[in-house]
Amino acid sequence: MPQNKQIQLDNRPDGEAVVGNFKLLISDTPALRDGQVLVRHHFLSLDPYMRGRMNDSKSYAVPQELGQTMGGGTVGEVLESKNAKFAAGDKVVGMGGWQEYSVVDADQPGALRKVDTTHIPLSAYLGAVGMPGVTAWYGLVKIIEPKAGETMVVSAATGAVGSAFAALSKARGCRTVGIAGGPDKCKYAVDELGFDACIDYKLHKDAASLSKALKEACPKGIDGYFENVGGMVLDAVLTRMNAFGRIALCGMIAGYDGTPMPLTYPALLLVNRLKVQGFIVSEHMEVWPEALKELGTLVATGKLKPRESIAQGIEAAPEAFLGLLKGKNFGKQLVKLI
Amino acid sequence: MPQNKQIQLDNRPDGEAVVGNFKLLISDTPALRDGQVLVRHHFLSLDPYMRGRMNDSKSYAVPQELGQTMGGGTVGEVLESKNAKFAAGDKVVGMGGWQEYSVVDADQPGALRKVDTTHIPLSAYLGAVGMPGVTAWYGLVKIIEPKAGETMVVSAATGAVGSAFAALSKARGCRTVGIAGGPDKCKYAVDELGFDACIDYKLHKDAASLSKALKEACPKGIDGYFENVGGMVLDAVLTRMNAFGRIALCGMIAGYDGTPMPLTYPALLLVNRLKVQGFIVSEHMEVWPEALKELGTLVATGKLKPRESIAQGIEAAPEAFLGLLKGKNFGKQLVKLI
Repeated sequence: MPQNKQIQLDNRPDGEAVVGNFKLLISDTPALRDGQVLVRHHFLSLDPYMRGRMNDSKSYAVPQELGQTMGGGTVGEVLESKNAKFAAGDKVVGMGGWQEYSVVDADQPGALRKVDTTHIPLSAYLGAVGMPGVTAWYGLVKIIEPKAGETMVVSAATGAVGSAFAALSKARGCRTVGIAGGPDKCKYAVDELGFDACIDYKLHKDAASLSKALKEACPKGIDGYFENVGGMVLDAVLTRMNAFGRIALCGMIAGYDGTPMPLTYPALLLVNRLKVQGFIVSEHMEVWPEALKELGTLVATGKLKPRESIAQGIEAAPEAFLGLLKGKNFGKQLVKLI
Repeated sequence: MPQNKQIQLDNRPDGEAVVGNFKLLISDTPALRDGQVLVRHHFLSLDPYMRGRMNDSKSYAVPQELGQTMGGGTVGEVLESKNAKFAAGDKVVGMGGWQEYSVVDADQPGALRKVDTTHIPLSAYLGAVGMPGVTAWYGLVKIIEPKAGETMVVSAATGAVGSAFAALSKARGCRTVGIAGGPDKCKYAVDELGFDACIDYKLHKDAASLSKALKEACPKGIDGYFENVGGMVLDAVLTRMNAFGRIALCGMIAGYDGTPMPLTYPALLLVNRLKVQGFIVSEHMEVWPEALKELGTLVATGKLKPRESIAQGIEAAPEAFLGLLKGKNFGKQLVKLI
């Protein structure tokens, strides 16, 4: 059996997460038992929710245990199988974690899924045609419920969720405005992802200034907002929401370090009769088939061309992950493991 | 025609509202034109939303104009009618404003409605069987959507909305916990209004302390919250909400003076996948018949016995209103005008 490099959580962050919270281990992959499959990972997905799991505090996710391999989505190829449903060479998506190989009890529901790479690249199953894509789909379709002609806004616009959100929102006839950090990301959002406009939040020192920029980009106000960030951005968006607007709360990256991020004017929720709803896409498995079908078609037909930031080798995962939390990535953050 | 005393908005509050914002005027009631009805008001309703209208800033309600009679709900008796649908002696509910008499264009939809006082006292049409009752009904039934066995919490528990909420929530098999100010109100909430428990927020200096009290009163956590207050109370309740909890935002009295009331931990909305929704009951007229039917039955059968705070005479309205904003009332605040 091949040797396996893996990254474990060694200790919990005290405030900001640092490289020292992780440690690298090398071990042999165990021999397969009946029903198991050995998968060689081609890509590991890095996602903001992982930061929440590094804390021991109450969160929607079970805390990552110390001394265990960090959890995470992976795509790869079956090397060896003792399960009738999988054969060597199958391309698969699963939750293999921060490591090069995983041994999977493939009869467990949802543990491993075969995917077709004829028209869709394997890595897309970790992004646009995977959890981030379905996250965008659920927030837009099930919480925001957009109508043609309305204005939709998404923060972290060039990320995996934001880029899928743009394609889905445009397909529904909505004006679609992004918020991202830096001129390169904003240009990319408009030129490649189909956003009607994109605001560089780094040009704005406070919510009032960002609010003015939103007014220009959203002349008819904002009807739907997909929240990936929290803090100042949410404060600014709230000042531009139209009556009966809907906000899907998916991530609040800025708050994972334990710094409270107050919402300055919650009274606006009442004044404008807004709906705000938090969700976690893994609790809504019933929508995945419908969502993946639409997302797969968008990718296969070239209407959704998400960008990827790729780090090389499992040793690079901690630095890449910390960069993601600071917005250093540009598009879906992956680690290439082959 | 009789002389009419009325209270106008003379100038807008600079921060806290004061008696000097109002002025008393005496005028003759005008002669009736065709289609009009002269109503003598028996009771005027005082409600927190009126404070929002005193500001000139953007709000859900159109600002109250300076030099005009303060708006407000009234019940009374028709004295004289030039409208075929109304006759002298009819008991009616309408939006007569802060005055003793009103002349109503009774053909306008919703301007004046006849009510039956056989089993329901006239004043109840301003409270439990009126706008506050329907407000409680809408928030509970349409936003919170309670299930039997769940735990519901309401702030301003002994007010017109809170008392109706308790009766409606108990009728649906929910543990029902109130938050109110002072031992008298809390005792009354449990003894007379049917609350399972009531917390005196004045005993708690911060959200952490109030959160502990909520944990005791709601051992299974909170599934639905009807928000009348905002600020510290909302912060505390958020820490006790169960996953998939629902919050109906109806009032944020503490914020009307222009003091921002930040929400300290909005990330809890995501962590617990909560839904928060603001609403104004007057925008949902379609539910009024169903809601009033249930509320009328609860009052007529003695299952909802709301308390009233009654000020005497139109001259007393400003003081009574300012007291309401500070929680000095005990039950539905009315002004008796006969």
